[in-house]
Amino acid sequence: MPHPSSSFSATVRVRLENRPGAFAELAAAVGRAEGSLGAIDLVRVERTTKVRDVTVLANDARHLDRIVAAIREVEGVEVVHVSDRTFLMHLGGKIEVNAKHRVRTRDELSMAYTPGVARVSEAIADDPAKVWSLTTKQHMVAVVTDGSAVLGLGNVGPEAALPVMEGKAMLFKEFGRVDAFPICLATQDVDEIVAAVTAIAPGFGAINLEDISAPRCFEVESRLRLELDIPVFHDDQHGTAIVVLASLLNALRVVGKKLPDVKIVTTGCGAAGTAVTEILVAAGARHVIGCDEHGVLYPGRPDLTPAKEAYARLTNPAERGTADDVLLDADVFIGVSVPGAVSRDGIARMAPRSIVFALANPRPEVDPEEIEDLATVVATGRSDYPNQINNVLAFPGVFRGALDVRARAITEEMEIAAALALAAVIPPDQLSADYVVPSVFDRAVAPAVARAVAEAAVAAGVARNRAVPAHTAH
Amino acid sequence: MPHPSSSFSATVRVRLENRPGAFAELAAAVGRAEGSLGAIDLVRVERTTKVRDVTVLANDARHLDRIVAAIREVEGVEVVHVSDRTFLMHLGGKIEVNAKHRVRTRDELSMAYTPGVARVSEAIADDPAKVWSLTTKQHMVAVVTDGSAVLGLGNVGPEAALPVMEGKAMLFKEFGRVDAFPICLATQDVDEIVAAVTAIAPGFGAINLEDISAPRCFEVESRLRLELDIPVFHDDQHGTAIVVLASLLNALRVVGKKLPDVKIVTTGCGAAGTAVTEILVAAGARHVIGCDEHGVLYPGRPDLTPAKEAYARLTNPAERGTADDVLLDADVFIGVSVPGAVSRDGIARMAPRSIVFALANPRPEVDPEEIEDLATVVATGRSDYPNQINNVLAFPGVFRGALDVRARAITEEMEIAAALALAAVIPPDQLSADYVVPSVFDRAVAPAVARAVAEAAVAAGVARNRAVPAHTAH
Repeated sequence: MPHPSSSFSATVRVRLENRPGAFAELAAAVGRAEGSLGAIDLVRVERTTKVRDVTVLANDARHLDRIVAAIREVEGVEVVHVSDRTFLMHLGGKIEVNAKHRVRTRDELSMAYTPGVARVSEAIADDPAKVWSLTTKQHMVAVVTDGSAVLGLGNVGPEAALPVMEGKAMLFKEFGRVDAFPICLATQDVDEIVAAVTAIAPGFGAINLEDISAPRCFEVESRLRLELDIPVFHDDQHGTAIVVLASLLNALRVVGKKLPDVKIVTTGCGAAGTAVTEILVAAGARHVIGCDEHGVLYPGRPDLTPAKEAYARLTNPAERGTADDVLLDADVFIGVSVPGAVSRDGIARMAPRSIVFALANPRPEVDPEEIEDLATVVATGRSDYPNQINNVLAFPGVFRGALDVRARAITEEMEIAAALALAAVIPPDQLSADYVVPSVFDRAVAPAVARAVAEAAVAAGVARNRAVPAHTAH
Repeated sequence: MPHPSSSFSATVRVRLENRPGAFAELAAAVGRAEGSLGAIDLVRVERTTKVRDVTVLANDARHLDRIVAAIREVEGVEVVHVSDRTFLMHLGGKIEVNAKHRVRTRDELSMAYTPGVARVSEAIADDPAKVWSLTTKQHMVAVVTDGSAVLGLGNVGPEAALPVMEGKAMLFKEFGRVDAFPICLATQDVDEIVAAVTAIAPGFGAINLEDISAPRCFEVESRLRLELDIPVFHDDQHGTAIVVLASLLNALRVVGKKLPDVKIVTTGCGAAGTAVTEILVAAGARHVIGCDEHGVLYPGRPDLTPAKEAYARLTNPAERGTADDVLLDADVFIGVSVPGAVSRDGIARMAPRSIVFALANPRPEVDPEEIEDLATVVATGRSDYPNQINNVLAFPGVFRGALDVRARAITEEMEIAAALALAAVIPPDQLSADYVVPSVFDRAVAPAVARAVAEAAVAAGVARNRAVPAHTAH
């Protein structure tokens, strides 16, 4: 299943003897080490040698080391240095703050700064609503983390979270024309997080909470939503929920079933799992059964946290057992948990034309190849299978739409509107079992989501601006 | 003294009759209203009319209104609309967050974000020092305000402060190649400010405090300096102090006096005044007398705050009276206070070859024209007199230098080094009474200051990197 990826690639600078076949031997060595060759550039020609930059792609970091070792063993090849492309890309960070205007002359200075800026400040002091038109607030999102649940790495802290938040800011810009700035907090205390975000909020048009571990993320989000008059959106929850709902609606069309009728089993009741269930129920699902590592959640199960007790009340009145047990006659399985949470046997017990979303990443709950004869539609979080469920399909458009109408909040209606718009990006006649969710690089997605979110914000009465711009996002 | 300025300029779109002399009448009307004409653009030619964009410069906002009214009265001229150029420049804000790399392909995504970024996060989690090389921290400054003392406007709050902080961020980029991001705080409580800045610090390489009123600014700065391992620099204090010291050293060369020998009188004991006196004393001044609105500060004066009592102890053992009184035989007057703080009579009492820095802005402590026969060197905060004392001569280079060596702090030695470097930008043979401080647009300033600050940081033992880059700033 592993395959060569740019994320584990290096540019190897080599000095090769100037003789026929020298490069072929190097290429063969890379091949024997099961590496892939990427770009090959000639750096310079020397008297008896050539210097080349050879990009090699590996499956993981140790594989990369093995490939480089194999190159070193080729006779007549000297490895000058090895540049890890991912690390190279990160040197100096991935984002920058730029001025929209130069300040080269007295004229420019007197408008961008003193004395001219004083009039702009006064205008905002006189009419606070003008902060939305005369400053960056209108397009600026804070990407806030405490570093407690970063990717699959866990509690690595705010500094180690920064490259991820910078990456998120890049995606905001690339896909949603949204300016986003990483705020990595040196505290994991809920009160302190709420206080810090509340303190810095005036300069931002919205807050994206990111990689904050459950159950603290629920309290942080709900308290900030009460405190602030701008959207607060925990992407791990709601971004995932939107993309899952969109994909599920399309998958149900493919198998000819309806959301209110199907039996849905989920594994994982953390941030994402809880939000997924909430949006499914809000969108009309009536038979959702949630499981954690101890099996099915039901009201009154002795070990439940308050959050899980609430989850159980929202979903399952009566069923008991393991996830595999309750998959009996289920139409849909949605895993947002860990590899092995369900088995092939469990999936085999599902109703005909079953839908399996195995979203644990990088290793899904159940290996898609293991169940390809059982499930009709399979989706994962991975890019190397069809139907990748990826939050980047939601958050750029969601925030673009919310900012476009200067929304006070992102409501459940706006989230469902985003999901419906995302689902509708695939024309009905193109829907198929291996195409229920658009590509993350589909440029139609963000504008469609943005428009739907903006319109839903107006309808829900949370828009400061009631005019939805004609062209949003790219 | 008022004069037409771009900061009070508008682009007026007019429709003029297509006849000889029509534009001349408009120009005459602007002239009669004492406005200046700027750029004149032809927008389009219609059947019997022409549409033009006419830029007019005014002295202030009311003057601008008068000029536009005068244009409206010209026969055959229709004013289509009036665009205030300063406000136009502010629409949508003045800064943006950009990605340094595009994310258009699966390859790019897998390096900038998941899965590649996980390796970078892990590298930082394993070795926290790597946050300096692999993230934006190395070049990112937070420009932090609570909106309590914004320009001359006072306590206008965080939203109204935002355009000023954006302008500051523009100057950081333009002059220092420093990325700076505005953080406008929704609190003016010292504990909450310290907590919020401490919480967001992990993502920043330095903190620039801005427009926080005295005496809270002193406590905020000193507590943050204890708390954080990155530079914390209140620019209203230390930026001003650096530029004043640099200008004073050059002015003393012009009049042939030495810092330790001269008697210096200051008015204003707020953030800037206190810091100016501290740096003067640190640089060798021995006779400084500070005054506030109640006259000379001396130890034991009944109404002194703790900060002012400390100031009095640092300076004046014995003198009493008003600022005008103690100007008797003074060599230097430095006003960082309010118009009228000293009089022509006071300045007349100074020693021969006197130096007057009247830095209240926009109206100086004493009108430069009123004392041109009395003082040898006069400097102000204004751009329309020689010798403009402007913080932009200091902060871009100071932060550039501190970031270049990843400094833990900005020490007094670094500040004095910055002042010496700034003073030395003017070659000794070019020094003159009306040229003691470089132009704010002198591109030699920031690199010179940056290099001096970086070297001083290494010497002071606060540099994480001991190698000073060869080329800093522009």
